[in-house]
Amino acid sequence: MLKVGFIGLGVMGKPMARNLLRAGYPLAVHNRSRGPVEELAAEGAKAAFSPAEVSEQVEVVITCLPDSPDVELVALGPKGIIEGIREGAIYVDMSTISPVTTQKVAKALAERGAHMLDAPVSGGQEGAINGTLSIMVGGPERAFERCLPLFEAMGRKVTHVGGTGAGQIVKACNQIVVGMALTAVAEALVLGSKAGVDPEKIVEAISGGAARCWALEQRAPRMIQHRFEPGFKAAYHYKDLGIAMDTSRAFEVSLPASGLVYQLYGALKAMGRGDWDHSAIVTLIEELAQTEIASG
Amino acid sequence: MLKVGFIGLGVMGKPMARNLLRAGYPLAVHNRSRGPVEELAAEGAKAAFSPAEVSEQVEVVITCLPDSPDVELVALGPKGIIEGIREGAIYVDMSTISPVTTQKVAKALAERGAHMLDAPVSGGQEGAINGTLSIMVGGPERAFERCLPLFEAMGRKVTHVGGTGAGQIVKACNQIVVGMALTAVAEALVLGSKAGVDPEKIVEAISGGAARCWALEQRAPRMIQHRFEPGFKAAYHYKDLGIAMDTSRAFEVSLPASGLVYQLYGALKAMGRGDWDHSAIVTLIEELAQTEIASG
Repeated sequence: MLKVGFIGLGVMGKPMARNLLRAGYPLAVHNRSRGPVEELAAEGAKAAFSPAEVSEQVEVVITCLPDSPDVELVALGPKGIIEGIREGAIYVDMSTISPVTTQKVAKALAERGAHMLDAPVSGGQEGAINGTLSIMVGGPERAFERCLPLFEAMGRKVTHVGGTGAGQIVKACNQIVVGMALTAVAEALVLGSKAGVDPEKIVEAISGGAARCWALEQRAPRMIQHRFEPGFKAAYHYKDLGIAMDTSRAFEVSLPASGLVYQLYGALKAMGRGDWDHSAIVTLIEELAQTEIASG
Repeated sequence: MLKVGFIGLGVMGKPMARNLLRAGYPLAVHNRSRGPVEELAAEGAKAAFSPAEVSEQVEVVITCLPDSPDVELVALGPKGIIEGIREGAIYVDMSTISPVTTQKVAKALAERGAHMLDAPVSGGQEGAINGTLSIMVGGPERAFERCLPLFEAMGRKVTHVGGTGAGQIVKACNQIVVGMALTAVAEALVLGSKAGVDPEKIVEAISGGAARCWALEQRAPRMIQHRFEPGFKAAYHYKDLGIAMDTSRAFEVSLPASGLVYQLYGALKAMGRGDWDHSAIVTLIEELAQTEIASG
């Protein structure tokens, strides 16, 4: 079996690494704080003390980190993955970061004879725990095929979407659609509710037709009940929409509606609600209308 | 069986009236142009020559008209429904119009002892022909119950959402979510495509998760292939979002994202594309980015 390394054992990374361990892969692990490392070591993983120490002993090294600068540091910084990585080995970045950073890291690793896949996920902590993530993979076909069994141990839907960076671009597309659908449902519920209609009735009446979407089915109930424990944090969605903005600038694309929704999530974060679920965008729309959704 | 009248035999009204006729209801019909009247008369309907001539002979009179001024004219104008309507009769308006107009018409009819239901539909011409419309009904409970068999002859999902005007308000909510989801999918596909990813791959990768929606499943293929025969015309969606705007003003609600999408549909109409399917919003986003989506 492939020898695998995993760096970044946070809310997403730890359960993903655990699923690889359970699938039988020999696993070296590293994390800035040592708690999760010791936890996984107790379950059979090998503890490492730097990214380079992970990469020098494995054929595939995976990261799952918060943002672009973290990936750049862990991959290319001092004692980074690049210092230990073997020729022919594969670096798989499962973080959600800028495709521009992905390109830069891939280029640096290529000079050492290593390959890179960008493989961001969606499906949240629940998907990470249950191994039901959607995984969007960019990078060379052969590297994708070698890593497919690993992806299948962590996710349910794995799609190879194109060359280096394509996974990150598709993830940005995903976050645009999700953020805008949440905003649409929020505006619809606030309008209908302030105009005197029971929001539960709105959801019931429009769910069957062209308005049907995950945001309406899975998040309208939270909006109506004001239950905003995450889920997926608004601050992360703001960060992800920022990646979409960076990408739109890099490729000269103008996204008027995505840009507006990005700014609304920025306001939500500024209001101190970055740690709430992203469906809390409804609270901003409520405040603009000086109302609160109330179920009849 | 209830004696029914139907006024407004357009793209939607004619097949809806036909479904009532097929369900066995005695039906009086009227339309400004006479072609559809004669067509339905040949199938067993009774031709009338004014709205008043319809309303004086039936227990339930239905309209399906383009916009608020048309409803006001047909209901309250010279030889209008109000001139013939019987005490205790029910007027059902299945047009998509402003809830403010609905309130006004209902009030005028109440003074004549008649009741009103607002019952806009979604599901398009196909739903009208097949009797599979979603129908969102506002108005008094007893009137709703009397008309329910009629609605069930025309639609599949019938929801009583509240008092007078509530049907129109929920329809406005529906059009907000649909218009914004279409715009979201358009922006995602243009970004991804210009950044070099095959748009078919984007749809495939994100359809299974939180981005899933009718717009992605049913309209992304049209966007990619540039097939914009309606469907549902962009000019109608612009009109419907205008109703949402009017409603937001009437109830003091601020809808930043819906307002932007409204303006984008206004631009699409100004570009001469009002007769195209509403998914043609992608052509506007393409032009902003000076690109065309191209499938790999």
